[in-house]
Amino acid sequence: MIEPFDPASHPHRRFNPLTGEYVLVSPHRNNRPWQGQIEPPQQITLPHHDPKCYLCPGNERASGQNNDTYEHTMYEHTKIFPNDYASVLPPPGPAARATPHPLFVCEPVVGTCDVLIFHPRHDLTLARLSLTAITRIVDEWVGVYRRRGSQQSIKYIQIFENKGAMMGCSNPHPHGQIWALSHIPTIAATELTSLARYAANPGNHMEPSESPRGPFGRPCLLCDYIHFELGVAEDQGRIIVHNEHFVALVPWWAVWPFEILVLPYHRHIPSLAHLTHEEKLSLADVLSKVTKRYDNLFSCSFAYSMGVHQRPLPPSEEDIQNIDDEDNIAHLHFHFFPPLLRSASIRKFLVGFELMGEAQRDFTPELAAQRLRACSDVHYLDLVEGEGEDANLSD
Amino acid sequence: MIEPFDPASHPHRRFNPLTGEYVLVSPHRNNRPWQGQIEPPQQITLPHHDPKCYLCPGNERASGQNNDTYEHTMYEHTKIFPNDYASVLPPPGPAARATPHPLFVCEPVVGTCDVLIFHPRHDLTLARLSLTAITRIVDEWVGVYRRRGSQQSIKYIQIFENKGAMMGCSNPHPHGQIWALSHIPTIAATELTSLARYAANPGNHMEPSESPRGPFGRPCLLCDYIHFELGVAEDQGRIIVHNEHFVALVPWWAVWPFEILVLPYHRHIPSLAHLTHEEKLSLADVLSKVTKRYDNLFSCSFAYSMGVHQRPLPPSEEDIQNIDDEDNIAHLHFHFFPPLLRSASIRKFLVGFELMGEAQRDFTPELAAQRLRACSDVHYLDLVEGEGEDANLSD
Ligand SMILES: [Zn+2]
Ligand SMILES: [Zn+2]
Repeated sequence: MIEPFDPASHPHRRFNPLTGEYVLVSPHRNNRPWQGQIEPPQQITLPHHDPKCYLCPGNERASGQNNDTYEHTMYEHTKIFPNDYASVLPPPGPAARATPHPLFVCEPVVGTCDVLIFHPRHDLTLARLSLTAITRIVDEWVGVYRRRGSQQSIKYIQIFENKGAMMGCSNPHPHGQIWALSHIPTIAATELTSLARYAANPGNHMEPSESPRGPFGRPCLLCDYIHFELGVAEDQGRIIVHNEHFVALVPWWAVWPFEILVLPYHRHIPSLAHLTHEEKLSLADVLSKVTKRYDNLFSCSFAYSMGVHQRPLPPSEEDIQNIDDEDNIAHLHFHFFPPLLRSASIRKFLVGFELMGEAQRDFTPELAAQRLRACSDVHYLDLVEGEGEDANLSD
Repeated sequence: MIEPFDPASHPHRRFNPLTGEYVLVSPHRNNRPWQGQIEPPQQITLPHHDPKCYLCPGNERASGQNNDTYEHTMYEHTKIFPNDYASVLPPPGPAARATPHPLFVCEPVVGTCDVLIFHPRHDLTLARLSLTAITRIVDEWVGVYRRRGSQQSIKYIQIFENKGAMMGCSNPHPHGQIWALSHIPTIAATELTSLARYAANPGNHMEPSESPRGPFGRPCLLCDYIHFELGVAEDQGRIIVHNEHFVALVPWWAVWPFEILVLPYHRHIPSLAHLTHEEKLSLADVLSKVTKRYDNLFSCSFAYSMGVHQRPLPPSEEDIQNIDDEDNIAHLHFHFFPPLLRSASIRKFLVGFELMGEAQRDFTPELAAQRLRACSDVHYLDLVEGEGEDANLSD
């Protein structure tokens, strides 16, 4: 007799409807019950201000200039990275030339690369900032999305954060990047195509659904997806936390061991610029909870790459109420891709079969969600340092 | 006046016609002339036989069994990895179940994961094996491709090698893997789709071309591509080495700093099983030259993931002469994806923008090809150890 299929124990592949790619899941390789981490918490204490950090307030730069003595966030063009150049250069770019052969496609690119310093304190990451401080970062993102998105030749704004030496980020001072580009990058473009295809093909989804709708009353892949996830019993499901407007979950198709998708579920929201003040507070809250749980998982400053996918460019102020616009097919979401696997030092390698065939993971997204649900919302360093001190005082 | 576009110095993106993805190239970030490496060569000497290695001949395994005292290659099911499990399990698999929602696609997978030990010597990699020894490995690949490819439920054979701790491979004993799967993995499937689309759309390519043709006399993307590359002046081009039947080059669309594509150029060859004896010798020769140049680049044992893309399953012995078969749309090729960037210790990280947007590189594929062309075909360890000793004696 053939055993009935069980995704918790049988090898299988799951389809990612955003990218059109599969992930091979091998749960039988990692079916041990989770025993928790027994490593001692990392007590690496960074100074509040590091005189050698080129992102700390007031410090002298390689150029001889001094940083502003900023009190909250600070936003700048990437020239602030010494000895570094932006990956793209501002317009006007050179004229395109004809390709010598159709297999040698080559497009000139223009744009800008900016840095947003999250906070003057050298030692505080998103996981240890107050809600007020995170909300300020969200506001800054909206601002730069609007400013850069209204510049000539720009077609996409990519906001992201690289955190941790494991992700190639050598400076622990909390900061993220914003690249404005003359093209829509491959992954964002693929996702937008998938969202448009889903909206256009009623056969792809289940009717009737009570989930919110996208532009022209058409179904939204992510609204439908999260609506279904919210209906799954918690102990079977993939949701880690949700608050009034946002959900964080390990998606069904997660590639990275503790990959997280953060998205609004109450209504279809195309971009950061569409958020109400309440929704921004809700977003700050969910980002705080996600990053705290990450740090608590292995009692370390958890490395990740985080990025925002949304409407390629912001709508004009007048158009913000008009949901019926093709560009509003986008559904705002944040991806967190962390490399850590079983402890603060064991990382997942994307190699071999994954580079030649397809992504592969051992333990299931359901198990990852269960482990992250079990983590506290209080940061381990704030517990250890004594109940009196709360980093959240650092607005 | 607008400057004319120059891919050697202006930011641009290049299209990969195999995957349909772009890579963002930022040559202005890395336009310094190549100064060569002045690091001393790594003289880490491994023993010819390591009593603790579970791949060395005659050694005892965790299971209590002993390895054969094999003299050349050794082929086995992955059970030889202690405490490890294959990523997929042999058929029969469990019965598929209905998906609860179209966004939750889940397919059971069956298959096998095998290991091929390249040589009894613990310390010799492809870069230091004789042509006879490498040809034996090619013959073994043909054998396992035929054997596993004729098994029930199997739809694709993925041959690959992970080399180096940087690629998550902890045992230096030379070995590769062969996964037989009940599905065509995402990347191989995408490439096959691209090859089929190219063959079907005469508008995509340039006529007339003298390059070899695929099945039904239709154009082949890779035959046309390599034909064009062979016509580019060497100092402008991307070719590293070529011999009678094979070429190794840094492809136009390379993502990894020193990525290499190896493929036959004289005729359209769908798979390893289609190779004549002469072509196998030619393949062994080019693999030897590529891996030697890799080691010589930074005077170290160069880490990489290597994989074979070819016809999903081998043709029957009778069908081998019949090129007019849809499956022969595949064009045999090897990908080498190495993580090293500027020295034996500086690696490229695929993070941030690359995970959220698209792949990005600084120095151009042309510059990488130039550097690899400048490397010697004689392995640095064989030079250093004295002219009398040649690892190639170890057949
Ligand atoms: Zn996305
Ligand atoms: Zn390929």
